Order: sequence, then C-alpha cells, then structure tokens
Amino acid sequence: MNQDLIARAQHTLETQPFSILLGTKVTKMDGSEVELSLPIRDELKQQHGFVHGGVLAYLADNSLTFSGALALLSNCVTSEMKINYVRPAIGEMLHARAKTAYSGSSQAVATCEIYVVNGGVEKLCAIAQGTIVKTS
Amino acid sequence: MNQDLIARAQHTLETQPFSILLGTKVTKMDGSEVELSLPIRDELKQQHGFVHGGVLAYLADNSLTFSGALALLSNCVTSEMKINYVRPAIGEMLHARAKTAYSGSSQAVATCEIYVVNGGVEKLCAIAQGTIVKTS
Amino acid sequence: MNQDLIARAQHTLETQPFSILLGTKVTKMDGSEVELSLPIRDELKQQHGFVHGGVLAYLADNSLTFSGALALLSNCVTSEMKINYVRPAIGEMLHARAKTAYSGSSQAVATCEIYVVNGGVEKLCAIAQGTIVKTS
Amino acid sequence: MNQDLIARAQHTLETQPFSILLGTKVTKMDGSEVELSLPIRDELKQQHGFVHGGVLAYLADNSLTFSGALALLSNCVTSEMKINYVRPAIGEMLHARAKTAYSGSSQAVATCEIYVVNGGVEKLCAIAQGTIVKTS
Repeated sequence: MNQDLIARAQHTLETQPFSILLGTKVTKMDGSEVELSLPIRDELKQQHGFVHGGVLAYLADNSLTFSGALALLSNCVTSEMKINYVRPAIGEMLHARAKTAYSGSSQAVATCEIYVVNGGVEKLCAIAQGTIVKTS
Repeated sequence: MNQDLIARAQHTLETQPFSILLGTKVTKMDGSEVELSLPIRDELKQQHGFVHGGVLAYLADNSLTFSGALALLSNCVTSEMKINYVRPAIGEMLHARAKTAYSGSSQAVATCEIYVVNGGVEKLCAIAQGTIVKTS
Repeated sequence: MNQDLIARAQHTLETQPFSILLGTKVTKMDGSEVELSLPIRDELKQQHGFVHGGVLAYLADNSLTFSGALALLSNCVTSEMKINYVRPAIGEMLHARAKTAYSGSSQAVATCEIYVVNGGVEKLCAIAQGTIVKTS
Repeated sequence: MNQDLIARAQHTLETQPFSILLGTKVTKMDGSEVELSLPIRDELKQQHGFVHGGVLAYLADNSLTFSGALALLSNCVTSEMKINYVRPAIGEMLHARAKTAYSGSSQAVATCEIYVVNGGVEKLCAIAQGTIVKTS
C-alpha cells in the first residue's frame, strides 16, 4: 500500500514540468513524512561545482508541499519557507526529507532536511521550514 | 560602464550550468541593486500552470547572492534566505530585483522582490530576505 | 486625523500588557506604514549590554502586525516572521518601521526595519519579513 | 554533572536583565539540547489574553543561542531566525526546546519547538529555526 501511495505521489510529481526537467523522484512516504530524491548532474550546479542553492530551495519547497498535503489531505502550495544552507552539496544524489510539525484546518507547518550523498556517505546540506496552505 | 558591469555579471551567471538550464539573464545593475530576468516557459511550471515555487526560490537565491557580492566586492554565496509567495506567477516574464540592506566585513543582508509580467502588466509574486557571505 | 489614528493605535497597543511592560509607543502612521518606538533601558538588555534580540523580535512581530492590520482593515496576528540582526543595538531609542508589501483577502506580507538611535545617530540594527493574518 | 551544567547556564541567563524581567529558567540540558521554561503571567500577554508573539520569539532566540553555544563551545549570538506561530499560547507554562542540526567552525544552525502547558496538557505553539554565530 505504501508503494501505491508512492506511485500516486510520483504521478503528481510528474504533472510538474519543472520536476520532470530536474528529474525528481518520490522515494519514501510514511504518514506525513516524504522523501524526494534527485540525482545530481552537471546541469544542476553553480560555478563552483556544487549543486545550485536554487535546486536545494526547489527540493525544500516541493517536499514541504508534499508533506503538508499528506497532513491536510488536500491540494496544497507552500506559501512561505526559510532555508539554511549548511554545507556545499557535492556528490551524486540529494534526498529531501520533510515532515509536518503542525496541521490545522487550513494550513500546516512542516520542516525539511536535505542530505547529499557523496561516495555513499550521506551528509546534511540544508534545513528548511515553511507554511503549506490548502488550494481548494 | 553600467553595460560593462552587466556584461561581466552575465558572464558570471553563465558559469552556472543551472542558470543556463533555466535561461536567466542579468538585466539591470545599479550600486548593489541587481535585476535578474527569466522568460517563463512550460518547463518552469508546476501542475496548475503557474511558475514552480522552486523557480522563484532559485531567482531569489541568485539575485540575493549577486546583490550581496556587489556590496561585499567578493565571491559570495547565500547562506540562508526566506521567501514569501504572494501571488501565483502567471505570465511571460519574471524579474527578480534585489538590493542590500546591510553589508559588513564578511556578510550582507539583502532583500528581493520578484515580479511577474502578464500581458505587459507587472505584479509582485514573491518577496525574499537573506544572508550573503563571502566565500574567499 | 493622522494624530487620531496614532492615538487609536496607541490605545490598542496599551491593551497588550507585554507592550506596557516594555514601554512601546506608536509614533508614526501613514497608510500601511507604522513606526513603533521603544526607549532603551537596562531591563531590555542581554549580558553584553546590547538590547536583547528578543526585544527586537518583539518589535518586529508587533510592527508587522500593526502594518498588516492597517492594510487588511481587520484584527490580525503575525503567523510567521523572519528576522536578521545586523548590528548590536546600543543606544537610547529603538524605532521599528513596518510597511505592507502585499495584502490579499485574508493575509498580508509586510517588512520591517529596526533602527537604533545612539547619540542622535540612527543605524539599522535588524530587518524582518512576515505574514499577517486576519483573526476575525 | 548535568545539574552543574544547568546551574552554569542558569547563571549565564541571569546576566541577561531581559531574561530576569521575563522570568526565564534553564530547565534541561543534554548535549546541544536545551530547554528554557517561562511561567506565564498576565504581563506577558497581548490583547486577546494569549502570550504575546514577542515572548515566544524571545524564547526561540534565546534557546537557539544556548543550543548553538553548547555545540560551538563559545559565546554566541543568534544572527537570524524564523518563527512560525502555530497555536495561541494559552496556559500556565512555556517550554522552549532547542537543538543544533549543524555546527561548523564559526556558526551553527539550530531548531526550536515551543510548547505551552495548559491544565497539565502540553501543546506545540511555535517552531523556529536560526543561525548562531560565535562572538569571540
């Protein structure tokens, strides 16, 4: 059943042209917890060879929205968020893991940790917090 | 001379593969104020036909970095930022305008407003604030 | 009339026991722009003799709420905010100036700059951004 | 020994006049995790009888600083933070629990959850994230 939920979330993700352009996958779901994964390729980098901060902000935004939508059981958007970049993202894979800290009748507050996998070793590279609101 | 500054900033932007993938241009510079512009195309959208929040967060991140770098006269990265999405971004063009509110010896705090142009009418769609730090 | 608006806002502020404890005054109002002022005294400081960051965060929170309430024409609360402290607040007076960047049917996004006056010279010491929502 | 650490942290807190004015206590410490507690009294409230958002922001700021200082083993200040208020704080006691998600050579990123205790029942009322930097 969890595989079925992941498949449905992946289907939603694939209705986002920008997520297709980047290559994001839904890789885990459990309650309001969701993991989005994104293989690193050169196109996602900035001038120093690290993943661009904008890619990490995209992953934060999207994983927060998914987590909030799971908690609110509704179509949602992220209305605001904050992200701290803590380490250059160098490696082969990104995992963004979001969970909902609070959900009410119309909005949720979720947090997200983004990890980069480099040579099989996973390290925290960003941490985010944001508000997710129902759109319908 | 301002055109020369813009050309140099555009050159820096073009060393970012992710900015090339998205199609961002440096369109104005004046003191620590910088404007990045990005033509909207389908690949940048989410499932409702609006520009993906991750694209706006990328523009905020990048314009904050440019503004801070102009104030700090150094290579810089954005170490953290916060963005509020205030309106769905629907239209043909995005303009992100950042300026530095404070700069010290090693870091700056900058703000950014992102506008969407739809049928020639420009509207605010996001507002951001962040910290920019020297990398060297 | 502006003096009348200020008097009414001051009256609202005085229904907040915490604002009375701190000693905050409404000193300017113009459209959605509002200025709250707070004389610095020892009780508001931290261990290094600067104004405590919590006092600045309180001023940000409160001035954002007032600005949003002026734009939304409703009772409001700040639902979230972000603050950057840019300089130690040393001096005799604080001025928090907030204005609304966007207001919709149920919420507003406002920004705030906090200045400290030291020997008659005013300097930026914090900058904030937040969401204000109607409560009724 | 943990009691000794708490006593030393409490001593530091008591060098902050603003924390004495409010009545904050250090109630737990474990690694980089710290809990600050604040009994609710009328002076800390806003006009609707809830704890003022500025008090919660103060607790977030202060607990983030303490957590970062424990991780960085240095005197520290919070350079920026973001707070989401998720529920009106009504009750008799506030507990702010902060922990450090990342610490480097000169700064740390920490998160904080603030709970209100009402009739013995504890509920989340705010969540925060911020950057803590060494001051010496």
